[in-house]
Amino acid sequence: MARDSIGIGLMGVGTIGGQLVKSISDKAEALADIVGCPVVLRKVKVLPEDLSRPVVHGMPAQLFTTDEEEFFNEPGIDIIVEAMGGVEPALEYHHRALSTGRHVVTPNKELIAKHGADLTALAEEHDVSLLYEASVGAGFPLITPFKHDLATNEISGIYAIINGTTNYILTMMAREGMEFAAALKLAQEKGYAEPNPENDVEGIDAHYKLAILASLAFHTQVKPENVHHEGISRLSSRDFRYAAELGFAVKLLAIAKQVDNTIEARVHPVFIPEESQLAKINGVYNAVLVEGDMIDKVLFFGQGAGPLPTCSSIIADIVAAAQQVAGGGTRDRRRKDSGRSIKPMSEVTTRYYLRIKAADQPGVLAQIARILGDNQISIASAIQKETDPSTQAAEIVLMTHPAQEKAMQQALGEITGLKIVKEVSNFIRVEDDI
Amino acid sequence: MARDSIGIGLMGVGTIGGQLVKSISDKAEALADIVGCPVVLRKVKVLPEDLSRPVVHGMPAQLFTTDEEEFFNEPGIDIIVEAMGGVEPALEYHHRALSTGRHVVTPNKELIAKHGADLTALAEEHDVSLLYEASVGAGFPLITPFKHDLATNEISGIYAIINGTTNYILTMMAREGMEFAAALKLAQEKGYAEPNPENDVEGIDAHYKLAILASLAFHTQVKPENVHHEGISRLSSRDFRYAAELGFAVKLLAIAKQVDNTIEARVHPVFIPEESQLAKINGVYNAVLVEGDMIDKVLFFGQGAGPLPTCSSIIADIVAAAQQVAGGGTRDRRRKDSGRSIKPMSEVTTRYYLRIKAADQPGVLAQIARILGDNQISIASAIQKETDPSTQAAEIVLMTHPAQEKAMQQALGEITGLKIVKEVSNFIRVEDDI
Repeated sequence: MARDSIGIGLMGVGTIGGQLVKSISDKAEALADIVGCPVVLRKVKVLPEDLSRPVVHGMPAQLFTTDEEEFFNEPGIDIIVEAMGGVEPALEYHHRALSTGRHVVTPNKELIAKHGADLTALAEEHDVSLLYEASVGAGFPLITPFKHDLATNEISGIYAIINGTTNYILTMMAREGMEFAAALKLAQEKGYAEPNPENDVEGIDAHYKLAILASLAFHTQVKPENVHHEGISRLSSRDFRYAAELGFAVKLLAIAKQVDNTIEARVHPVFIPEESQLAKINGVYNAVLVEGDMIDKVLFFGQGAGPLPTCSSIIADIVAAAQQVAGGGTRDRRRKDSGRSIKPMSEVTTRYYLRIKAADQPGVLAQIARILGDNQISIASAIQKETDPSTQAAEIVLMTHPAQEKAMQQALGEITGLKIVKEVSNFIRVEDDI
Repeated sequence: MARDSIGIGLMGVGTIGGQLVKSISDKAEALADIVGCPVVLRKVKVLPEDLSRPVVHGMPAQLFTTDEEEFFNEPGIDIIVEAMGGVEPALEYHHRALSTGRHVVTPNKELIAKHGADLTALAEEHDVSLLYEASVGAGFPLITPFKHDLATNEISGIYAIINGTTNYILTMMAREGMEFAAALKLAQEKGYAEPNPENDVEGIDAHYKLAILASLAFHTQVKPENVHHEGISRLSSRDFRYAAELGFAVKLLAIAKQVDNTIEARVHPVFIPEESQLAKINGVYNAVLVEGDMIDKVLFFGQGAGPLPTCSSIIADIVAAAQQVAGGGTRDRRRKDSGRSIKPMSEVTTRYYLRIKAADQPGVLAQIARILGDNQISIASAIQKETDPSTQAAEIVLMTHPAQEKAMQQALGEITGLKIVKEVSNFIRVEDDI
């Protein structure tokens, strides 16, 4: 059936929601063109404190409501955009929207990572779509390619820089030799990092995003709690210096791999070869490398965040949902659940870089090597880097052959317990093959 | 209406068609899953000489026919994949397929570049889709993002490495200091270049692909004859050496820009800053950088060619068409024709690098500079590089400020006519802003 217009309801007028109010208006002509009828913002649900925002003052007052009932009862809302963030009350609103037959579009990565599987099932039950292109890699297509273009590929691996804040900090540490604290401060001054940066620097944001990507790529539910995550705060300028000497770059990667029909999903700092495509992604940009049986490898690169790129992705989803409303088309189909299980981090195998501070005396390396050997970990190279004359401590840098995480954690505990070892200053996993 | 199966007819069993016969079979389960019913290859149109191919012997004989009538009259063909290449008879078959209500999927870039606008109109008339994701950047999504994800962005520029053969040759020239002929020979030995390499090295393949991308990005018909194209055969190892000294990489780029509501579309070697993302794309890979008002910039990277990546893109299109058949969905809508005109190459403005061989005598640079000045071209830097003692010829390398192509061509003619100038060895346009 032809439609006179498609109605949008928006929840939230923060940075993203505020931009979306503007963008739907700015892009009205293009939207009408590609959907086949006007796409109209009918109602915006706001919090009382939002009513003082400039974006609210620039629009007719009756567009906004603080009342949930008024919002959901507004007639002619076909698509609801949830741009509030967080789990509650967003989850409840998603339920209400989908159950009443509205398509839902959202950039809310935490909600999709935690509840995407259930919400998708609910959407299918009501024959509507739940779309979340803006939740990962905002501005560049990523969710849609996984659902469409790459859908018949068997994906073997995803290697992703999906947090711009941490990539900016690591770029500054690598290029300028800055320590973490100084690079973080710079990122905060430039507005790339929040005053409370934990969500970014501890890998929390990235682990939500990886849960979303891995679920799509491997056709199984990868929950956030299945994704091991570590941040970048324990990295030091020394690690970057030694990495460069060894021919590696240091990046915070979100990695999901299929190994023997089980899925590995983990976010942590890694050494990657400096000639790798991902090693060259600098600053606040995001990049996602995908390997599959037919595509070999493809890479998507872009801003990954920010109000305009995020709204670009939200509007792409609005168009997809609106075309379904206007054209009577059907929602996306998914591939059957692959039933693949998630490998615990303790069973993951990688190479390791170790940096150890020890007494500068004969036999130190032999004692460390014995512990590694006893744990079935073989050493690829070992260099005693330098001695601090004031403390008589030497720095030992080791690269191992592939070893299981469980064995490495056991060995690290034993090494830390050695009397001649002052500290295991750092250990960083190594990904050679990208 | 629910369907028992979706039928595919394939035209051509060369490298791509042959792989597709295998891939449709290999991916049967994933295809059925995502389409909602089996996707079945019903008939393959071949040439008499194809009947001896191994792929034909591996399948039931009745699957193949050399007879056009038998192919088109086979019942139950919903989607026709044309993998023959070239314009005739492919164009005639596209007409016949679309006119009889079949969706058409093709990797045929020459046909789409030359006749895509007419064929798309014919498809719309019959309410079916013409899909050609595999025609540019095979293996990674590009056509679909332009039609969907980026569709409401105002695209300001496309900068693309879309020919793997030439990118491999340029990589060898840059890395190994090889001359063009030696690098081409190596590419031929590795199977990256054809025995007759003209289509790749002269920019013909790239200019078809750019015509397709520019038409989509700027919502207007950009014909191949609107795309100025030059190849890489006139590049010398000296140009790479001087480029590196000046901080540039040399790439064959396909560039389409919107400038003052007109479209520039051109394929030629360029100097780009060595820290640019595209400067780091080496070997046979493709990469397409897109700039838009909301996305800022995004980049797509992948193989761009080869039987498996091409079939990945063809299968993605088959899925899209099959979902329309199975679900009763509607085809893509396009944005209205923007009516933008194409700027002739003579009016394009860029910076230039010039390499000139001249007599090693006083006043040479002054005479060249006067001609440039008379043509309103100002010099940014000038270096007399070296003198060949045997010929008493000096090499002069100039970088200009932005100048119009028309003026530069006029100046180059005048410089060539100077008695003291032995030759204008090369001129290469410069793109600073990517």
